[in-house]
Amino acid sequence: MTDTATTRPRTLAHPGLQEIRLEAVLHALSDPVRLSIVRDLAAAPDELACSYFVLPVTKSTTTHHFRVLREAGVIRQTYVGTAKMNALRRQELQTLFPHLLDSVLAAAAAEEERRAGP
Amino acid sequence: MTDTATTRPRTLAHPGLQEIRLEAVLHALSDPVRLSIVRDLAAAPDELACSYFVLPVTKSTTTHHFRVLREAGVIRQTYVGTAKMNALRRQELQTLFPHLLDSVLAAAAAEEERRAGP
Repeated sequence: MTDTATTRPRTLAHPGLQEIRLEAVLHALSDPVRLSIVRDLAAAPDELACSYFVLPVTKSTTTHHFRVLREAGVIRQTYVGTAKMNALRRQELQTLFPHLLDSVLAAAAAEEERRAGP
Repeated sequence: MTDTATTRPRTLAHPGLQEIRLEAVLHALSDPVRLSIVRDLAAAPDELACSYFVLPVTKSTTTHHFRVLREAGVIRQTYVGTAKMNALRRQELQTLFPHLLDSVLAAAAAEEERRAGP
Protein backbone atom coordinates (compact mmCIF):
# COMPACT_ATOMS: atom_id res chain seq x y z
CA MET A 1 0.00 0.00 0.00
CA THR A 2 1.34 3.40 -0.95
CA ASP A 3 1.27 6.23 1.51
CA THR A 4 0.24 9.13 -0.70
CA ALA A 5 0.81 11.58 2.12
CA THR A 6 4.54 10.98 1.85
CA THR A 7 4.93 10.19 -1.84
CA ARG A 8 2.78 13.00 -3.23
CA PRO A 9 4.12 16.43 -2.37
CA ARG A 10 1.71 18.81 -0.73
CA THR A 11 0.72 21.61 -3.03
CA LEU A 12 -1.00 24.91 -2.40
CA ALA A 13 -3.57 26.62 -4.61
CA HIS A 14 -2.35 29.49 -6.76
CA PRO A 15 -4.28 31.64 -9.21
CA GLY A 16 -3.28 31.11 -12.83
CA LEU A 17 -1.82 34.05 -14.70
CA GLN A 18 -5.16 35.01 -16.21
CA GLU A 19 -6.89 34.81 -12.83
CA ILE A 20 -4.66 37.41 -11.17
CA ARG A 21 -6.62 40.61 -10.49
CA LEU A 22 -5.07 44.05 -10.14
CA GLU A 23 -7.28 44.96 -7.17
CA ALA A 24 -6.20 41.85 -5.30
CA VAL A 25 -2.52 42.56 -6.02
CA LEU A 26 -2.85 46.16 -4.80
CA HIS A 27 -4.74 45.01 -1.71
CA ALA A 28 -2.05 42.42 -0.97
CA LEU A 29 0.63 45.11 -1.24
CA SER A 30 -1.28 47.66 0.86
CA ASP A 31 -0.36 46.13 4.22
CA PRO A 32 3.00 47.10 5.74
CA VAL A 33 3.83 43.57 6.90
CA ARG A 34 3.00 42.06 3.52
CA LEU A 35 4.91 44.82 1.74
CA SER A 36 7.97 44.09 3.88
CA ILE A 37 7.72 40.38 2.94
CA VAL A 38 7.57 41.32 -0.74
CA ARG A 39 10.56 43.64 -0.40
CA ASP A 40 12.61 40.90 1.26
CA LEU A 41 11.66 38.45 -1.47
CA ALA A 42 12.54 40.99 -4.16
CA ALA A 43 15.96 41.54 -2.61
CA ALA A 44 16.71 37.83 -2.13
CA PRO A 45 18.63 35.93 -4.82
CA ASP A 46 16.48 32.85 -4.23
CA GLU A 47 13.23 31.77 -2.61
CA LEU A 48 12.93 32.16 1.15
CA ALA A 49 11.41 29.92 3.81
CA CYS A 50 8.61 31.37 5.93
CA SER A 51 10.88 30.80 8.93
CA TYR A 52 13.33 33.32 7.44
CA PHE A 53 10.98 36.17 8.21
CA VAL A 54 10.96 37.74 11.65
CA LEU A 55 7.76 39.75 11.69
CA PRO A 56 6.15 41.82 14.45
CA VAL A 57 2.99 39.69 14.37
CA THR A 58 1.87 36.28 15.63
CA LYS A 59 2.60 33.07 13.73
CA SER A 60 -1.03 32.73 12.65
CA THR A 61 -1.10 36.33 11.40
CA THR A 62 2.12 35.67 9.50
CA THR A 63 0.52 32.62 7.87
CA HIS A 64 -2.50 34.76 6.98
CA HIS A 65 -0.29 37.39 5.32
CA PHE A 66 1.53 34.78 3.22
CA ARG A 67 -1.81 33.31 2.19
CA VAL A 68 -3.14 36.71 1.08
CA LEU A 69 -0.01 37.22 -1.01
CA ARG A 70 -0.31 33.74 -2.53
CA GLU A 71 -4.03 33.98 -3.28
CA ALA A 72 -3.53 37.39 -4.91
CA GLY A 73 -0.87 35.89 -7.19
CA VAL A 74 2.01 37.92 -5.76
CA ILE A 75 4.03 34.97 -4.43
CA ARG A 76 4.37 31.27 -5.16
CA GLN A 77 4.57 28.94 -2.16
CA THR A 78 5.96 25.44 -2.40
CA TYR A 79 6.73 22.82 0.19
CA VAL A 80 10.29 21.56 0.35
CA GLY A 81 10.14 18.86 2.96
CA THR A 82 8.39 20.52 5.88
CA ALA A 83 9.54 24.04 4.94
CA LYS A 84 7.21 26.35 3.05
CA MET A 85 9.29 28.23 0.50
CA ASN A 86 8.25 31.59 -0.97
CA ALA A 87 9.12 33.26 -4.24
CA LEU A 88 7.84 36.42 -5.90
CA ARG A 89 5.91 35.82 -9.14
CA ARG A 90 7.92 38.69 -10.52
CA GLN A 91 8.08 37.74 -14.19
CA GLU A 92 4.39 36.87 -14.33
CA LEU A 93 3.38 40.14 -12.67
CA GLN A 94 5.67 42.00 -15.06
CA THR A 95 3.91 40.29 -17.98
CA LEU A 96 0.46 41.22 -16.68
CA PHE A 97 1.19 44.64 -15.24
CA PRO A 98 4.46 46.03 -16.62
CA HIS A 99 6.50 48.07 -14.11
CA LEU A 100 3.81 47.89 -11.42
CA LEU A 101 5.77 45.81 -8.92
CA ASP A 102 8.98 47.71 -9.62
CA SER A 103 7.28 51.06 -9.04
CA VAL A 104 5.77 49.81 -5.76
CA LEU A 105 9.18 48.52 -4.62
CA ALA A 106 10.79 51.83 -5.57
CA ALA A 107 8.02 53.74 -3.77
CA ALA A 108 8.53 51.64 -0.64
CA ALA A 109 12.26 52.35 -0.72
CA ALA A 110 11.61 56.06 -1.26
CA GLU A 111 9.18 56.16 1.63
CA GLU A 112 11.59 54.37 3.93
CA GLU A 113 14.31 56.86 3.07
CA ARG A 114 11.94 59.78 3.56
CA ARG A 115 10.81 58.53 6.97
CA ALA A 116 14.40 58.02 8.09
CA GLY A 117 14.87 61.77 7.51
CA PRO A 118 17.84 63.75 6.20
CA MET B 1 -23.25 90.66 11.58
CA THR B 2 -21.33 88.45 9.18
CA ASP B 3 -22.60 85.01 8.26
CA THR B 4 -19.38 83.01 8.30
CA ALA B 5 -21.15 79.97 6.90
CA THR B 6 -21.56 81.78 3.61
CA THR B 7 -18.46 83.96 3.55
CA ARG B 8 -15.93 81.33 4.61
CA PRO B 9 -15.69 78.45 2.14
CA ARG B 10 -16.04 74.98 3.55
CA THR B 11 -12.80 73.09 3.42
CA LEU B 12 -12.00 69.41 3.81
CA ALA B 13 -8.98 67.89 5.55
CA HIS B 14 -6.19 66.60 3.32
CA PRO B 15 -2.89 65.00 4.27
CA GLY B 16 0.14 67.15 3.51
CA LEU B 17 2.66 65.80 1.04
CA GLN B 18 4.89 64.39 3.77
CA GLU B 19 1.93 62.73 5.49
CA ILE B 20 0.94 60.62 2.48
CA ARG B 21 1.71 56.94 3.11
CA LEU B 22 2.32 54.35 0.41
CA GLU B 23 0.20 51.72 2.16
CA ALA B 24 -2.76 54.10 2.32
CA VAL B 25 -2.40 54.99 -1.36
CA LEU B 26 -2.26 51.31 -2.37
CA HIS B 27 -5.24 50.52 -0.15
CA ALA B 28 -7.20 53.40 -1.69
CA LEU B 29 -6.44 52.08 -5.17
CA SER B 30 -7.24 48.44 -4.31
CA ASP B 31 -11.01 48.85 -4.55
CA PRO B 32 -12.59 48.57 -8.03
CA VAL B 33 -14.99 51.48 -7.48
CA ARG B 34 -12.25 53.76 -6.19
CA LEU B 35 -9.93 52.69 -9.00
CA SER B 36 -12.63 53.56 -11.54
CA ILE B 37 -12.98 57.02 -9.96
CA VAL B 38 -9.21 57.52 -10.20
CA ARG B 39 -9.18 56.40 -13.83
CA ASP B 40 -11.96 58.84 -14.71
CA LEU B 41 -10.12 61.66 -12.95
CA ALA B 42 -6.88 60.75 -14.73
CA ALA B 43 -8.63 60.87 -18.09
CA ALA B 44 -10.44 64.16 -17.42
CA PRO B 45 -8.87 67.43 -18.52
CA ASP B 46 -10.17 69.16 -15.39
CA GLU B 47 -11.56 68.40 -11.95
CA LEU B 48 -14.87 66.56 -11.78
CA ALA B 49 -17.88 67.01 -9.51
CA CYS B 50 -18.95 64.02 -7.40
CA SER B 51 -22.27 64.18 -9.27
CA TYR B 52 -20.39 63.38 -12.50
CA PHE B 53 -19.79 59.82 -11.36
CA VAL B 54 -22.44 57.19 -11.91
CA LEU B 55 -21.32 54.34 -9.66
CA PRO B 56 -22.95 50.97 -8.87
CA VAL B 57 -23.13 51.79 -5.16
CA THR B 58 -25.29 53.88 -2.83
CA LYS B 59 -24.71 57.60 -2.36
CA SER B 60 -23.29 57.07 1.13
CA THR B 61 -20.90 54.40 -0.14
CA THR B 62 -19.84 56.76 -2.91
CA THR B 63 -19.14 59.46 -0.32
CA HIS B 64 -17.13 56.92 1.67
CA HIS B 65 -15.01 56.01 -1.36
CA PHE B 66 -14.23 59.66 -2.12
CA ARG B 67 -13.27 60.20 1.52
CA VAL B 68 -10.90 57.20 1.48
CA LEU B 69 -9.24 58.60 -1.65
CA ARG B 70 -8.97 62.07 -0.09
CA GLU B 71 -7.65 60.87 3.25
CA ALA B 72 -5.04 58.70 1.50
CA GLY B 73 -3.84 61.75 -0.43
CA VAL B 74 -4.88 60.44 -3.84
CA ILE B 75 -7.43 63.18 -4.61
CA ARG B 76 -8.05 66.76 -3.58
CA GLN B 77 -11.66 67.74 -2.86
CA THR B 78 -12.84 71.32 -2.86
CA TYR B 79 -16.25 72.89 -2.57
CA VAL B 80 -17.34 75.13 -5.40
CA GLY B 81 -20.68 76.44 -4.22
CA THR B 82 -22.56 73.33 -3.20
CA ALA B 83 -20.66 71.04 -5.57
CA LYS B 84 -17.76 68.96 -4.29
CA MET B 85 -15.06 68.96 -6.95
CA ASN B 86 -12.42 66.24 -7.24
CA ALA B 87 -8.93 66.30 -8.71
CA LEU B 88 -6.13 63.75 -8.70
CA ARG B 89 -3.05 64.84 -6.73
CA ARG B 90 -1.08 63.54 -9.67
CA GLN B 91 1.98 65.78 -9.52
CA GLU B 92 2.36 65.33 -5.77
CA LEU B 93 2.08 61.54 -6.02
CA GLN B 94 4.60 61.60 -8.87
CA THR B 95 6.99 63.56 -6.63
CA LEU B 96 6.62 61.10 -3.76
CA PHE B 97 6.32 57.85 -5.69
CA PRO B 98 7.62 58.27 -9.26
CA HIS B 99 5.66 56.28 -11.87
CA LEU B 100 3.50 54.53 -9.27
CA LEU B 101 0.19 56.07 -10.30
CA ASP B 102 1.01 55.76 -14.00
CA SER B 103 1.85 52.07 -13.64
CA VAL B 104 -1.39 51.43 -11.74
CA LEU B 105 -3.39 53.28 -14.40
CA ALA B 106 -1.62 51.31 -17.15
CA ALA B 107 -2.24 48.06 -15.26
CA ALA B 108 -5.94 48.89 -14.92
CA ALA B 109 -6.17 49.58 -18.64
CA ALA B 110 -4.31 46.34 -19.42
CA GLU B 111 -6.60 44.37 -17.17
CA GLU B 112 -9.72 45.89 -18.71
CA GLU B 113 -8.47 44.97 -22.17
CA ARG B 114 -7.58 41.47 -21.05
CA ARG B 115 -11.01 40.91 -19.48
CA ALA B 116 -12.73 42.16 -22.61
CA GLY B 117 -10.98 39.30 -24.40
CA PRO B 118 -9.51 39.01 -27.90
